[in-house]
Amino acid sequence: MAEMVNVAVDAMGGDNAPVEVVKGAVDAVNADRRVKVFLTGRESVIKAELQKYTYNAEQMEIVHAEEVIETGEPPVMAIRRKKDSSIVKAMQLVKDGTCDALVSAGSTGAVLVGGQVIVGRIKGVERPPLAPVIPNMKGVSLLLDCGANVDARPSQLLQFAKMGSVYMESVIGVKNPRVGLVNIGVEEEKGNALTKETYPLLQNCPEINFIGNVEARDIPYGAADVLVCEAFVGNVVLKMLEGVSGALVERIKGGMMSTVRSKIGALLVKPALKKTLKGFSTEEYGGAPLLGLNGLVVKTHGSSKANEIKNSILQCIAFKEQKINQKIKEKVVLDN
Amino acid sequence: MAEMVNVAVDAMGGDNAPVEVVKGAVDAVNADRRVKVFLTGRESVIKAELQKYTYNAEQMEIVHAEEVIETGEPPVMAIRRKKDSSIVKAMQLVKDGTCDALVSAGSTGAVLVGGQVIVGRIKGVERPPLAPVIPNMKGVSLLLDCGANVDARPSQLLQFAKMGSVYMESVIGVKNPRVGLVNIGVEEEKGNALTKETYPLLQNCPEINFIGNVEARDIPYGAADVLVCEAFVGNVVLKMLEGVSGALVERIKGGMMSTVRSKIGALLVKPALKKTLKGFSTEEYGGAPLLGLNGLVVKTHGSSKANEIKNSILQCIAFKEQKINQKIKEKVVLDN
Repeated sequence: MAEMVNVAVDAMGGDNAPVEVVKGAVDAVNADRRVKVFLTGRESVIKAELQKYTYNAEQMEIVHAEEVIETGEPPVMAIRRKKDSSIVKAMQLVKDGTCDALVSAGSTGAVLVGGQVIVGRIKGVERPPLAPVIPNMKGVSLLLDCGANVDARPSQLLQFAKMGSVYMESVIGVKNPRVGLVNIGVEEEKGNALTKETYPLLQNCPEINFIGNVEARDIPYGAADVLVCEAFVGNVVLKMLEGVSGALVERIKGGMMSTVRSKIGALLVKPALKKTLKGFSTEEYGGAPLLGLNGLVVKTHGSSKANEIKNSILQCIAFKEQKINQKIKEKVVLDN
Repeated sequence: MAEMVNVAVDAMGGDNAPVEVVKGAVDAVNADRRVKVFLTGRESVIKAELQKYTYNAEQMEIVHAEEVIETGEPPVMAIRRKKDSSIVKAMQLVKDGTCDALVSAGSTGAVLVGGQVIVGRIKGVERPPLAPVIPNMKGVSLLLDCGANVDARPSQLLQFAKMGSVYMESVIGVKNPRVGLVNIGVEEEKGNALTKETYPLLQNCPEINFIGNVEARDIPYGAADVLVCEAFVGNVVLKMLEGVSGALVERIKGGMMSTVRSKIGALLVKPALKKTLKGFSTEEYGGAPLLGLNGLVVKTHGSSKANEIKNSILQCIAFKEQKINQKIKEKVVLDN
């Protein structure tokens, strides 16, 4: 049997914790024998949830943590002070080698700060990007950076491109992924100071498949597999994708309910439409990895349901088995 | 009778020129007696198009221009060299006072450069922003800047907020428009160097109704009436809106055609849906004004059809009658 993949899961993080988080953890261990989950959080609460389910007890462990970091807390302070919180405990399990990865739906800030401060960066990685998988018309793209650190340098964007290529190829399974630089025009000379300086770095990097600038309009059509940008822009791309899809679907539902005729039609199109729209939801693809750390840190939506938690835990298997961090060290660090 | 509003229209600009542009011009003069259109471009071509229609001849004039600036041409060079092009001629009509405004579906770069170089900025305006009206769930917002000049300064963003407020109130008719700063979080301390410096300037400006930071996710829900950002971010917001809506509608149509049952349903929902989606199209609201110039310059989509050209011409009436430039001078310049 292959080595187990140990995943720490922050049982107290997110809007639907602990109910949905614990359910997702159970679903993950029931789906794959290779996973062992370490649930961090209040033992009594977690135990009560676990009692609802049947699962292989050897694949589940509780690590007690008394405190919870709330979404509104200043992250640096919270990570420093709440040593006995579910997030910090999960981070320490990765730091000390007990776990290979961790999954949290908790405070994004705390996960980003904790990832860097407790788990720590791979030596040579300048900035660990948060890299959500986003849906497009043809499949999915990896968008990085969507983290909290804005105003990146060109050398950091080059590292994002390399780390993103490794992840996309080895975890998501896209061969020779096409790397695009998010920009306001396709021509090489377009953009701001950052994109103009970054373009030649990407173009001259033999280890990535750089296809040039990508305009935001073409992102939903799958113009590139790995989308490179600094975090402010990445955040706007991600949030516009979520906001426009959400608003449009709401509007379409409203439109369908506006006449008697359309209401009858709506009943008939509903099943097909539901299937179609599911593929365009950002929540279908598990959480966003924070790349370049000594272990995998996965941030899922604050609103995560069991399915997203489960998918996030399962993606840690490929991460470990494909030796992503070894590849990142070879591609990103040794090349520098 | 009120004074006529003279609008120069670049008859050769855009993918559907001259056919749709001339048709739009005819539709505009037939819709409103207050407008006179000056069509710039090759006289023989324009004449041939005009012969298809009936309209009041006093409201239409042709100004011959031999050359056309193509979309691919470097704008600065094109504006400088092609003095006898339809765009440059239209710009000169505004510059010399013959026209109050101009509408072009041609090269965005040439329109932006020509606007600044030929029409000229209002004294005191640091940078004229391109300000498209974008649809949201509640109505519309004005997004500025979406132009070609990136890396703006905080003082420029403050001017955008003031000019956008004037336009939104006087042309679009939104009283006391809510101004939002596009950012990656709602808290004051969030963002990059630019937004952090801009926030207090907006907050301390008594002439605008600043409501704080707006996350991209909330833009489609109508979180603010005037959305202030630098041009790279504005471009990403606009293009994501267009791209995600386009891709999603395509996907929904595909989903509706996937089963026999859903095909029947699609026939029934189609009329209601068409109406709903029309309100969410960026092409329904006329072109984007370039604010802060000595005259109004309106850039419409390259793919403009007659309807967008017509709406763009008609919006020039409110611009003149509401004395927008006088208000911009008072609010933006005298305050500095």
